Amino acid sequence: MKAAIIGGTGYGSIELVRLMKKHPHIEIGTVVSNSHAGAKFSENYPQLSNIVDPILEAFNPDRICQENDLVFFATPSGVSSKLVPPLLDRGIKCIDLSGDFRLRSSEEYESWYKHTPVSEDYLNHAIYGLSEIYAEKIKTANLIANPGCYPTAAALGLIPILKSNLADLNTIIIDAKSGVSGAGRGLSLTSHYAEINENLKAYKLGAHQHIPEIEQTFQDETGHPITITFTTHLVPMTRGIMCTMYLSLNENVTTDEIQQIYSEFYKYKPFVRVRSQGAFPATKEVLGSNYCDIGLHFDARTNRLTVISVIDNLVKGAAGQAIQNVNIMNGWDEQTGLEFIPMYP
Amino acid sequence: MKAAIIGGTGYGSIELVRLMKKHPHIEIGTVVSNSHAGAKFSENYPQLSNIVDPILEAFNPDRICQENDLVFFATPSGVSSKLVPPLLDRGIKCIDLSGDFRLRSSEEYESWYKHTPVSEDYLNHAIYGLSEIYAEKIKTANLIANPGCYPTAAALGLIPILKSNLADLNTIIIDAKSGVSGAGRGLSLTSHYAEINENLKAYKLGAHQHIPEIEQTFQDETGHPITITFTTHLVPMTRGIMCTMYLSLNENVTTDEIQQIYSEFYKYKPFVRVRSQGAFPATKEVLGSNYCDIGLHFDARTNRLTVISVIDNLVKGAAGQAIQNVNIMNGWDEQTGLEFIPMYP
Amino acid sequence: MKAAIIGGTGYGSIELVRLMKKHPHIEIGTVVSNSHAGAKFSENYPQLSNIVDPILEAFNPDRICQENDLVFFATPSGVSSKLVPPLLDRGIKCIDLSGDFRLRSSEEYESWYKHTPVSEDYLNHAIYGLSEIYAEKIKTANLIANPGCYPTAAALGLIPILKSNLADLNTIIIDAKSGVSGAGRGLSLTSHYAEINENLKAYKLGAHQHIPEIEQTFQDETGHPITITFTTHLVPMTRGIMCTMYLSLNENVTTDEIQQIYSEFYKYKPFVRVRSQGAFPATKEVLGSNYCDIGLHFDARTNRLTVISVIDNLVKGAAGQAIQNVNIMNGWDEQTGLEFIPMYP
Amino acid sequence: MKAAIIGGTGYGSIELVRLMKKHPHIEIGTVVSNSHAGAKFSENYPQLSNIVDPILEAFNPDRICQENDLVFFATPSGVSSKLVPPLLDRGIKCIDLSGDFRLRSSEEYESWYKHTPVSEDYLNHAIYGLSEIYAEKIKTANLIANPGCYPTAAALGLIPILKSNLADLNTIIIDAKSGVSGAGRGLSLTSHYAEINENLKAYKLGAHQHIPEIEQTFQDETGHPITITFTTHLVPMTRGIMCTMYLSLNENVTTDEIQQIYSEFYKYKPFVRVRSQGAFPATKEVLGSNYCDIGLHFDARTNRLTVISVIDNLVKGAAGQAIQNVNIMNGWDEQTGLEFIPMYP
Repeated sequence: MKAAIIGGTGYGSIELVRLMKKHPHIEIGTVVSNSHAGAKFSENYPQLSNIVDPILEAFNPDRICQENDLVFFATPSGVSSKLVPPLLDRGIKCIDLSGDFRLRSSEEYESWYKHTPVSEDYLNHAIYGLSEIYAEKIKTANLIANPGCYPTAAALGLIPILKSNLADLNTIIIDAKSGVSGAGRGLSLTSHYAEINENLKAYKLGAHQHIPEIEQTFQDETGHPITITFTTHLVPMTRGIMCTMYLSLNENVTTDEIQQIYSEFYKYKPFVRVRSQGAFPATKEVLGSNYCDIGLHFDARTNRLTVISVIDNLVKGAAGQAIQNVNIMNGWDEQTGLEFIPMYP
Repeated sequence: MKAAIIGGTGYGSIELVRLMKKHPHIEIGTVVSNSHAGAKFSENYPQLSNIVDPILEAFNPDRICQENDLVFFATPSGVSSKLVPPLLDRGIKCIDLSGDFRLRSSEEYESWYKHTPVSEDYLNHAIYGLSEIYAEKIKTANLIANPGCYPTAAALGLIPILKSNLADLNTIIIDAKSGVSGAGRGLSLTSHYAEINENLKAYKLGAHQHIPEIEQTFQDETGHPITITFTTHLVPMTRGIMCTMYLSLNENVTTDEIQQIYSEFYKYKPFVRVRSQGAFPATKEVLGSNYCDIGLHFDARTNRLTVISVIDNLVKGAAGQAIQNVNIMNGWDEQTGLEFIPMYP
Repeated sequence: MKAAIIGGTGYGSIELVRLMKKHPHIEIGTVVSNSHAGAKFSENYPQLSNIVDPILEAFNPDRICQENDLVFFATPSGVSSKLVPPLLDRGIKCIDLSGDFRLRSSEEYESWYKHTPVSEDYLNHAIYGLSEIYAEKIKTANLIANPGCYPTAAALGLIPILKSNLADLNTIIIDAKSGVSGAGRGLSLTSHYAEINENLKAYKLGAHQHIPEIEQTFQDETGHPITITFTTHLVPMTRGIMCTMYLSLNENVTTDEIQQIYSEFYKYKPFVRVRSQGAFPATKEVLGSNYCDIGLHFDARTNRLTVISVIDNLVKGAAGQAIQNVNIMNGWDEQTGLEFIPMYP
Repeated sequence: MKAAIIGGTGYGSIELVRLMKKHPHIEIGTVVSNSHAGAKFSENYPQLSNIVDPILEAFNPDRICQENDLVFFATPSGVSSKLVPPLLDRGIKCIDLSGDFRLRSSEEYESWYKHTPVSEDYLNHAIYGLSEIYAEKIKTANLIANPGCYPTAAALGLIPILKSNLADLNTIIIDAKSGVSGAGRGLSLTSHYAEINENLKAYKLGAHQHIPEIEQTFQDETGHPITITFTTHLVPMTRGIMCTMYLSLNENVTTDEIQQIYSEFYKYKPFVRVRSQGAFPATKEVLGSNYCDIGLHFDARTNRLTVISVIDNLVKGAAGQAIQNVNIMNGWDEQTGLEFIPMYP
């Protein structure tokens, strides 16, 4: 199976290449970059010399569909909403790593992303690709809206307790921290080394575009509209996301019961690892891998649960989950080609 | 005025030296390190060659009192509880940067610190040295229990709203993040470069010794017993603490009103800077300085306030506040010798 | 084929595990750690939970030989010299990642390493495992002395020009830089985060134990005794080595000719990539992979050549080259199981 | 004395502000930024809120001369060559931190900097501001060409041995390493956090614009034309420069003699600290300070000397030396306002 990549010079794209190169059933096909068409991939990424080095091409939907069986979009917001439709019309399956197809409400999209939303005809085809939760729908999807990095960590961390009926749904606070690669390869003061190194900063309080995505998922899973408090921080590291999440429980439970709820929930999900009681995951423990690791702390004094979840934002938070979804769509074992061991140290 | 430093080879000590060297009224006196007695200071810290280079001495209370007017303790937990009493008995004032004199309850101390508490005779002399809040008591104190780094950032960030009667005191969550220097110069896997770099980890959930210190201060300020949720994270940077704090308000207020409460509260406190609405401080913006910068975000959807406070853990969180307290004790302007501009970048 | 690992809690060991897990022909067998015998591997390395989690065992040569076909040593200096002999006596092949068998002269070993050298009976069996250069001898070896990290980068970078007869052998200067993981997981001030972060330091000038190893290789390859100037620096990063190397040429040549010499020399060596003229490799471009990337700059004004070579110290500089050697010993393609793409960013 | 700053939003400017704020005789006057005229300084640098917060102004030579006694230029290459002349014509003294007035040869400037050189009428007024070496000329200068960061570290490290007549002047190799702040606050992939962090890269081999500056100084000091080999590396840290320098000696000497040469040379230079034999400076040991620390290693086997010098690129390599020069120009003690102790850790 051949897969095209649209958005060939960004971090999402380079990570897709790294992962696909080790996948037994997927071959790298067309790589599209309108801004660098004609250049060799290794001109931007010399580390790929002698390994995989396609010539970047301009976007041409006919050619893409002739030469590929699948298309990944690793483009900035506002691009795939324009480029996915001509491909879907030609009958090729698309996996979109951007946010353009994640929100079911066009108004919400426009309000948070400040781009014109895609027409609902296409939006309705999109399946939200949170692999562990929506595998059934993903199997038959033509268009996957691959989840955002923060929403992946947040949803995998909270869904088990939200579905348990133990949680007070009005008390959800997500204190999220991310490495810098999540903002992509584009240039801005907030990715300037001297501004970020030895620094920790909070950003976009109450204004992050992942807020409606998380709330939509929580509503889908609980049947209730949910309003979260969500704070994002930029941490001086390249990869990694941690969500430290707080919520009150509305019944007396024990730590053991909560551990049990999570272990049960993820029993058959190889990429989610629930740490044993008293142990908490660090971002480096998933570096370069598709794992989401979860730690739990229940404080009986306040009846409040703290959940910590970590992922590699470029793998489980982007390219890895995209490939996991392709595995599911094709009926392959979902771990196929994704058995990367975290790189440590 | 001559000041002795006990604990001469740790980071607290080196920072006291950096700050005192610029202070117009304090001179560095005896520097005590039992483990390195006889060595020159610069053997451990070559950056001080040609600047200040005392010979380290063993602890000798008589000699210390003869040659100094003041004693700083920058020692690990469990040391000053033994060494402060003989100095107080000799009538010299002490500033303790460790936790030994911070908790008024001996039982609490023993339970969180796992050391034998000091006798209550001495404990009763200790004044908690949160400069902006307890200046009046500090003025006449003989023994200052200098606040911990997290408690300083947390207390300065929350006290204005806690005292406003607007806060629901049962909803306080403090998500705290610290650089590695807070753990001192001792060796452990959690300060090993390869384990910390490119990593973010949560630690000591529900078990951090700063929990009772923060709760004690909040109780003092509100008159109510308060139970907080407190999570600490280790961030891959050397200096800096950020507390991201959440609490629900029990009345409808506006963002403007909250900004006003904070601005009023800190109007005459030169080291606390309240950011304007929509702006949030980063740790690097206080690096090397004695500032505590505070940002505020109120979400009317949830009636929940988010407060972000940052300090340099070694300055306002340790040596800087210690010197600020000495300024207050001596009737000097509290900024004396502390007008360090944050080093940026 | 089953392989044992001796030294199960260090970084060399963990990297062997990461790589072996992806190798189609090697299975992880016994993992030995005398200090942690009885513990699960994941107690020290939670990132391996659910992936590979052997129980650490004490060193028992009979048991090791019964249950394994091969033994890797990832132990500190002075250990394998004692533990390899009983294994060799029992007929099992050993790959030693430490320095104990690298120097042919026992006196040199004792003088640089300050340990008792192994008896010459065993030392004589050791083949220096610089894969690209000594593949023929490696094929039939029973004991591989796997090269040091700096010596690998230095030798691969300079051997082509040294063997060309163009170099003035008295002018070799190697300015080497390494990330912190090269010093292992042991605790010391020089791996303390707060001491290393935002810092660059030179260390062991004229005293690094890799000096005789490099000189021995250069003598082997040129037939002349060679004395190098070698400076090592600690860089605030976890992985990666760069050697910036200088030497004078004794004839007029062109940059093209030098590029040609290197390209020819490494034509059939898949793990060495010679950058095109004017391009220079960065350590991140080999991160997590077994590549050694080389860049060349010739200055006709001074007739001096600058060679830059980079490796991941834990892969090509340790575990990766060890597995490459096992591939060679077994007649497998030398890339087997090592086709890791550099992780970027 | 009032000093204007031209180039008000870069790192050179912000560092001038940090240092001038502590200077007893210099006051911050006009701050010019054509691109941000009208904005408050703290809009770009919130860490200066409540401390120093001038309104940025457009460049107006009359106004500048009326309201200031001195002008600092912290502008990119190609700017001060245009803006200094109208100021010099009006009789105000200028300190230029850029490279526009450093090279005496207009052809060299044009060839390395790719900008139109300033007319020789003005160029001839420029005194090269390497404080420790050219204090006599600096005293009476109207225009200071403040040295580059690498040239400062290189020249202070090598001049003592070059002037000793012991050095073989054809063998000078400078392996230089810098933190990222040296490249300024402008945006480029080479200052993007995710590209720099956990990475070490060489750049501009044989093409760095500091080569002719260093060679010019060495020629001035030795009377011989000198050609150096100069390699620059980007290190994942914010501040700090280290030059590791190699040269052959043409006579037999002892390490003691070399230590003696350096100690004598810098006997009355408070900002240069020569480490004792066997000790080597790290960049963090000068962080935030105006020191240049030097370590020496002589290898009798090869008759080759290794010199290591470190500076903070923004202090001794830019703003600090600029103020040191102003001190010299005004007959003040050269340490005035510059007694910053290195910040450690």
